Amino acid sequence: MKINFNNMMERAIGPHGISQEEVNRVAEKTGAVHRAMEEKKGEMAWRSLPYNQDEVIKDIELTAKSINERFENFVVLGIGGSALGSKALFSALKHTHFNSLSAEKRGGVRFFVEDNVDPDRMNALFDLIDIGKSVFHVITKSGNTVETMSQFMIVLKMLEEKLGNGFKENIVVTTDRETGIMKKICNEYGFKTFVVPDGVGGRFSVLCPVGLLSAAVLNIDIGKLMAGAAAADKACVKEDLYENPAYMYALLYYIAMQKGVNVSIMMPYADGLGSCAEWYAQLWAESLGKEKSLDGRIVNAGQTPVRALGVTDQHSQIQLYTEGPFDKIVAFLGVEEFNTELMIPAPPIDVMDAKYLAGQTLNKLIASELMATEYAVSRAGKMNMRITLDKKNEFEVGALFFFLEMATAAIGEFLLINAFDQPGVEEGKIATFALMGREGYEKKAAELAAGKEKSEKYIMAVN
Amino acid sequence: MKINFNNMMERAIGPHGISQEEVNRVAEKTGAVHRAMEEKKGEMAWRSLPYNQDEVIKDIELTAKSINERFENFVVLGIGGSALGSKALFSALKHTHFNSLSAEKRGGVRFFVEDNVDPDRMNALFDLIDIGKSVFHVITKSGNTVETMSQFMIVLKMLEEKLGNGFKENIVVTTDRETGIMKKICNEYGFKTFVVPDGVGGRFSVLCPVGLLSAAVLNIDIGKLMAGAAAADKACVKEDLYENPAYMYALLYYIAMQKGVNVSIMMPYADGLGSCAEWYAQLWAESLGKEKSLDGRIVNAGQTPVRALGVTDQHSQIQLYTEGPFDKIVAFLGVEEFNTELMIPAPPIDVMDAKYLAGQTLNKLIASELMATEYAVSRAGKMNMRITLDKKNEFEVGALFFFLEMATAAIGEFLLINAFDQPGVEEGKIATFALMGREGYEKKAAELAAGKEKSEKYIMAVN
Repeated sequence: MKINFNNMMERAIGPHGISQEEVNRVAEKTGAVHRAMEEKKGEMAWRSLPYNQDEVIKDIELTAKSINERFENFVVLGIGGSALGSKALFSALKHTHFNSLSAEKRGGVRFFVEDNVDPDRMNALFDLIDIGKSVFHVITKSGNTVETMSQFMIVLKMLEEKLGNGFKENIVVTTDRETGIMKKICNEYGFKTFVVPDGVGGRFSVLCPVGLLSAAVLNIDIGKLMAGAAAADKACVKEDLYENPAYMYALLYYIAMQKGVNVSIMMPYADGLGSCAEWYAQLWAESLGKEKSLDGRIVNAGQTPVRALGVTDQHSQIQLYTEGPFDKIVAFLGVEEFNTELMIPAPPIDVMDAKYLAGQTLNKLIASELMATEYAVSRAGKMNMRITLDKKNEFEVGALFFFLEMATAAIGEFLLINAFDQPGVEEGKIATFALMGREGYEKKAAELAAGKEKSEKYIMAVN
Repeated sequence: MKINFNNMMERAIGPHGISQEEVNRVAEKTGAVHRAMEEKKGEMAWRSLPYNQDEVIKDIELTAKSINERFENFVVLGIGGSALGSKALFSALKHTHFNSLSAEKRGGVRFFVEDNVDPDRMNALFDLIDIGKSVFHVITKSGNTVETMSQFMIVLKMLEEKLGNGFKENIVVTTDRETGIMKKICNEYGFKTFVVPDGVGGRFSVLCPVGLLSAAVLNIDIGKLMAGAAAADKACVKEDLYENPAYMYALLYYIAMQKGVNVSIMMPYADGLGSCAEWYAQLWAESLGKEKSLDGRIVNAGQTPVRALGVTDQHSQIQLYTEGPFDKIVAFLGVEEFNTELMIPAPPIDVMDAKYLAGQTLNKLIASELMATEYAVSRAGKMNMRITLDKKNEFEVGALFFFLEMATAAIGEFLLINAFDQPGVEEGKIATFALMGREGYEKKAAELAAGKEKSEKYIMAVN
């Protein structure tokens, strides 16, 4: 995996790029950033995950083996950080139509991530799966996640109806080591349980059991994932900006943000990596979207992450990226080598004006389109960069995750914000509890019921 | 379908909202916008689609019936506007796991949209389908779309290998009425052909054969789609801002853009409407992302559309939306009534602290979360609005499409830009032709081969 930052620079794209002087000036902060990253390493428990999980990985792999031998479906019940890592691993590393393959070709269960509470979608799942032959991986650190707990309650009742008391094996839980409702439930009912380690927040949890049980069930090589993460870690230990790609990434985005660039696009040129952009969107948004700085100033920081997909979004978003405002960075995410090749043959009929394509591969086409788009965006003077994975495999994806986590932590230090909390989601959670009639939230319920006066003229019928 | 604009206003959300005075001032432009919308109605051929397609719809429905009777798979080969409408209709109106249902439950073929040229993804499709039992709907107005033509060439060769010369029935084409390579190919080889009407650009094409053949194959009621579109049309004919929701939508977004709000989020609270947000993202980005105004000034206009999904993205993006910069509008897209209901039962075991959920429905939960998030975003002083569909059905989805097209056309007039071209994608297309060795592009190929000097220090290895 490597990153080419050249197209962030004025030298490559003109006046809307970053100058070497700007880099030099902000580079002076790198020492302080580095010290903070070192000092807070203990708090950032996710940084140890590539090194301290030998035991738990063995347990995960045995559990996964048993699940694949005995069940037909594996369903993740989780949302946000409890779902996005599993989705990213699944779509990056498995067959596009995995669930439609035979069990033999899959090597085990069908795989589902239920990260929404849409009744039509959840009913659609139950149309499909035999619940008695399904394992549900319930993931909630606190046990307080209303979406996951609701799904858990629905599933438990269905399991009981189907299996009587014999549903213990159909539930696996990943939750806090000691505290929370879920932990108590697991203790009482004997569900197989994994732990979200302390200091590993949801959006940094893909490389702990939250994401790894899915990986193992999908026969993804966890050892290689971890080796990739460790390699990225080793590449990001030095203080020198030019020897630490995470600091360089953080610094360039930081400079761009100071210049008003408030949109961060991640645009993979590999269909399966689309979900990695989703995963990154959470990491970037929740970590950097902060009202206050560490010293309490109102800063309303944050870049809006945008999930794009090459080449598809060339026909949707590139018009805006080339001609629109100078308010965004496009991070292209390319793959040096795909897993398969597909030749464009000369067709049996005369396909006029498209003959130049015959004998070439889709592999060359998608690579050429990435280069061409990079060229067009650069020519339009818009900041962009390219992350290149050697292959779409465990090692590279592990490295990508860990690298982006390190870069996110580092930009948090440049911005002097707390990249690891999410106070802004509390208000909505409380309002949901109130609207659902939870005890203790009566006052908020009354406030919500009273509502704000609405102006009728701003409520308009369309049909 | 109705829209509540109240939370765009200062009165509801405080100083970062829009004041009534601002509305009054910009409302003076509405007359000119309205006149332009009237004068250009002939050019905007998509505005006639709800009214002038009786013949073609009959043809589409007969074709679809025959496809469902005789084939197992229906594959759209198209990209951008040739794919997004079909994807939106499919996911909004069909079962979440449609392709995994039995043919009987589906009522016909499995459905695929191949809107990328990733070799792994395309090979994955061929792992799955029997090509001889598949119909490919090739959609390209010009016949010049390199992605679609490549796929077409691949598929033709495979069909010949499987069926000899008997592959005519496996191809249906939608292309220009008269010009272009595809039209010539259809004439010569006798493929069934539908027309992209003149004046209907890709992103405005969902309600012509581009999207309607997919709809018909999926047994979506086209009549009701069209009735919804016509109803939205009728709701958007008046000059008065307060009687024309498309103008109100356009005006409020226009004012926000003038104030530096450069991010437009569409956040459906219904899983299946996620693809409608994708469709909107193309409409909004390509229509408004323009370097020049109609009178040739450099404006670099455009808002970046962001595709979010409730409730899922509450656990990914809401931290940013509440605490981050005042640079975005969140358009919530809700559904009054889902197609199914799902009760959260009291589970067989004691699920402590979650008892308040028992006996309520997921329907109530998702509705409450929408209200709660709207409340939290408003309290944080961020602009938002809500579009509410009565149901997730053909009529409402048709209305939604048409309404958003009208609003997009109207804001084009407020911005004084051409909302219907996309000059910014040419550079990338030309560079792709050059990199793929197409005749006539040798000069560009030489320029690309020469490349720009890169600084090695900005190319960094991560592992």
